[in-house]
Amino acid sequence: MKDRKLLMIPGPIEFTPEVMRAMGMPTTSHVAPNFIEAFGQALERLRQVFVCPSGQPFVVAGSGSLAMDMAAANLVEPGDAALVVNTGYFGDRFGAILERYGATVTHVRAPAVGDTPALEDVEAALKAGGPAKGPAAASGRGYKLMTITHVDTSTAVCADVKGLAALGREHGALVVVDGVCSVAGEEMHQEEWSIDLALTASQKAIGVPPGLALMVVGPRAMDAFHQRKTPVGCYYADWTQWLPVMEAYEARKPSYYGTPPVNLIAALDVSLGQILDEGMDARFARHRRLSDAFKAAIGGLGMKQVPVSADKTATTLTAPYFPDGVDRTMLAHVKAAGAIVAGGIHPDIRPWYFRVGHMGAVSASDILSTVGAIEKGLSQVGYEFEPGTGLAAAQAVLLIE
Amino acid sequence: MKDRKLLMIPGPIEFTPEVMRAMGMPTTSHVAPNFIEAFGQALERLRQVFVCPSGQPFVVAGSGSLAMDMAAANLVEPGDAALVVNTGYFGDRFGAILERYGATVTHVRAPAVGDTPALEDVEAALKAGGPAKGPAAASGRGYKLMTITHVDTSTAVCADVKGLAALGREHGALVVVDGVCSVAGEEMHQEEWSIDLALTASQKAIGVPPGLALMVVGPRAMDAFHQRKTPVGCYYADWTQWLPVMEAYEARKPSYYGTPPVNLIAALDVSLGQILDEGMDARFARHRRLSDAFKAAIGGLGMKQVPVSADKTATTLTAPYFPDGVDRTMLAHVKAAGAIVAGGIHPDIRPWYFRVGHMGAVSASDILSTVGAIEKGLSQVGYEFEPGTGLAAAQAVLLIE
Repeated sequence: MKDRKLLMIPGPIEFTPEVMRAMGMPTTSHVAPNFIEAFGQALERLRQVFVCPSGQPFVVAGSGSLAMDMAAANLVEPGDAALVVNTGYFGDRFGAILERYGATVTHVRAPAVGDTPALEDVEAALKAGGPAKGPAAASGRGYKLMTITHVDTSTAVCADVKGLAALGREHGALVVVDGVCSVAGEEMHQEEWSIDLALTASQKAIGVPPGLALMVVGPRAMDAFHQRKTPVGCYYADWTQWLPVMEAYEARKPSYYGTPPVNLIAALDVSLGQILDEGMDARFARHRRLSDAFKAAIGGLGMKQVPVSADKTATTLTAPYFPDGVDRTMLAHVKAAGAIVAGGIHPDIRPWYFRVGHMGAVSASDILSTVGAIEKGLSQVGYEFEPGTGLAAAQAVLLIE
Repeated sequence: MKDRKLLMIPGPIEFTPEVMRAMGMPTTSHVAPNFIEAFGQALERLRQVFVCPSGQPFVVAGSGSLAMDMAAANLVEPGDAALVVNTGYFGDRFGAILERYGATVTHVRAPAVGDTPALEDVEAALKAGGPAKGPAAASGRGYKLMTITHVDTSTAVCADVKGLAALGREHGALVVVDGVCSVAGEEMHQEEWSIDLALTASQKAIGVPPGLALMVVGPRAMDAFHQRKTPVGCYYADWTQWLPVMEAYEARKPSYYGTPPVNLIAALDVSLGQILDEGMDARFARHRRLSDAFKAAIGGLGMKQVPVSADKTATTLTAPYFPDGVDRTMLAHVKAAGAIVAGGIHPDIRPWYFRVGHMGAVSASDILSTVGAIEKGLSQVGYEFEPGTGLAAAQAVLLIE
C-alpha cells in the first residue's frame, strides 16, 4: 500500500510532478540562455496571475515574510501613518514590520476572532486620517498606506479586499494586500480592484516549494518608492537593487545583484504556465467549488468553523472547530488515515480548532480523501456520526454541474 | 553524444546526484518529523563544516547578500565604526551594507586589483581606531567590527583570513568573514582563527542550489547582538525572530516564524553529510590539489592570473587573463567544447580576464575536461600553442602522490 500522505496544510501544499521535476533538474548558470528565458517568462506570467497588466513583478529568494518586509521597507518613510486592517496573527505581524521602518501604525481590529472589521469602521479610520509625524504630517497626508490580509492563515478569515481597497484608494492610501494564502486561489483582480501592491510566497496557491517571495507592484506604489526622500531602511529588501535585475531578465538580458534561486525560479515558471493554462477565472471557480464541497462535509459532520459567516470565509483553506468531546489528538489518526492537516495557531483559540489547506493543484479526489481521513479520525476518537455523512455532503456539491 | 555541459563558474556549481534528488523529492510540511530531523541535523553539521563548535548556525531563505545583510543589521548600531578589508567588488558591497545600518566605514584597500591590503596597513588602521560617533564614541570603543572577504569572487584573490582575524581580535573588533566563495572549499577554521561570524551561500562550495543564506555566529558576536541598545534596522534579517527557530529545530522541536525552504534545507543536509564524510582536512587538501593542477594548466598555456602572487590566490576559483590577441569571444568556444566558465566582472579589468570555479564536488576529471575545453577554445580563436600543454601540466600535478 502507498504510504505517501496527502499534504493538506495551508502551505507547503501538494505540488505537480512537473514542478518537482523542475526542482530536481541540473542547476544552470543564472546567466544561461534557458534560465534567462524562464525567469523573464515567469515575470510576465506573474503579471497575468495577479491580473495586474501595468504592475512591476519582483521574485526574490526569501519567505513570505520577506515579501511583507519588502513592501514596508520600500513604501514607508519614518513618520508615515499606516492603517492595518487586522484579522489576526498576520495583521499583527504587518503592524510590527511597518513600525520597524518608522511608521505610526493604527490597527482597525475585527470585533472577535473569526470576524473582519466592518467596512464602516475602516472608512471612519481613513476619514479621521493617520497620526503622521514630522515631514509626513507637514505634507498634510492622512494614511500613506493601508494593509489588508486577504486570507488570514491562522483563522481562514477572508477579508473583503475589493471593498476595502476601494476605500483605501478613495482616501489616498496605498493599498497593500498580503495575499500569501490567497494569490492564485482566492479571487483577486489586482489592477481592477485598485490594489497597489499584492504579495505572496511560492508554497501556497502559486504551487512551488517554499523559498520565493513574490509580489507585483502597481504604478502608484512604484511612484511612491521613486519619490522617497530617505534611503530604504533595509539593504536586502531594497528595490533599488532588485528593480534593474527584474527589468533586465524580463528584457531577456542577463543581470546580477544576488544569485537568483535558479531551480525555484524554473519551477515557478512551470507552475505559472500550468496556472495560466487553466485560466484565472476557471481556477478561482475550482477553488470555490472544492472549498464549498469540503465545508459542506465539515458542516455535515457537525463541526462549526472559525470564520463567523460564509461570506467571510476563505476558499483556500478551512478552519473547523473540533466537535464536542474531541481534541487535537484526533489529528494523528487523520494523518494515519492518509491526510496531513494542521493544528491551530491563533493564540486565543489554539487548542480548539484545526486547519485544512485546499489550494493550488488540489483535486476533487484530494477533497474526498481528506474528508475520508477526517471521518476515520473522528471515528477513532469515539465521535458518533453516520459513516459517510461528510463524504456524501461533499459529493453533493462536487456533482453539481 | 551527451550535450550536458560542465558548469565551472564561481557558483552555481555542479551538484551531486544525491543533492538534486533531495531537491526534487515531494515537499513535506515544515513541521513533519523527517524535516525537523533534517533541519536539526543540518544545523549541527554546519557547525562542523565551519569548524566552530561553540557557534550558533543560521539557515534562512535568501541569497548570499542576505547573509551579509544579516551580519551588518544585527551587529551594527548607528554610529559604530567598521573597518572593511577591501579586496574588490564584494568589499565595496559590504561597506555599503554597513553604512545602511548607520556604521561609519573605513576601507583599507589593496594597492592594486589582484592584491590584498598589507597586514601592517590593517594593523595601523585598527590601532588608529575608528571614527565612531554618538554613544559608540562615548564608550571609547575603536572599531566595533571588521569585515574580510575571504575569496573575492570577482578576482580570485584570497585574503589571509587567519592573520587578519588575529589582528582584529587583538584590537577588540568583531571579525566578520564573507566566506561566500570559500566556506567548505578554502581552508578555514572559524573558531581557532578567532572569526566571530562567517557567512556563505548554498550554491558555492557548500554544494546546494542557490536560495539559502548560511552563517555561523560565535559567542562574542551573539553577545554583541544581545547587548544592542537599538532595534535591528531590518525586520526579515533580525535574529530576534530566527534565533528561537534555529534553537527549536536543533532541539528537534517544530517551530515557526517564516516557512523554511523545505527542499533546499533537505538538500543542504544531504550535502553537508557528504562534506563531512569526506572530512574537512581532506576536502581542503582536494581543493588545493585540483586548484594547483588547474593553475598549472593555465600557466602552461601562457596565461597570467589576476591575483598578484600564488599566496594571494584562491583554491576555489581561478581568474586567468586572456593571452595576447585573445578576447572573451573565446568563451563561447569553450562552452561549445563542453565547459561553461564565467566572464570578468571587476569594473577595472572586465574585458581582459575570465573566471573558472572549481569547488564543491569537483573532480580531477572535471579539471581535465575544463582544461581540454579551454585548449579547444584557444585553438579555435587562433592562439598558437602545443596541443595538450595545459593537460600535461595539470596531469603532472594530479599524479603527485
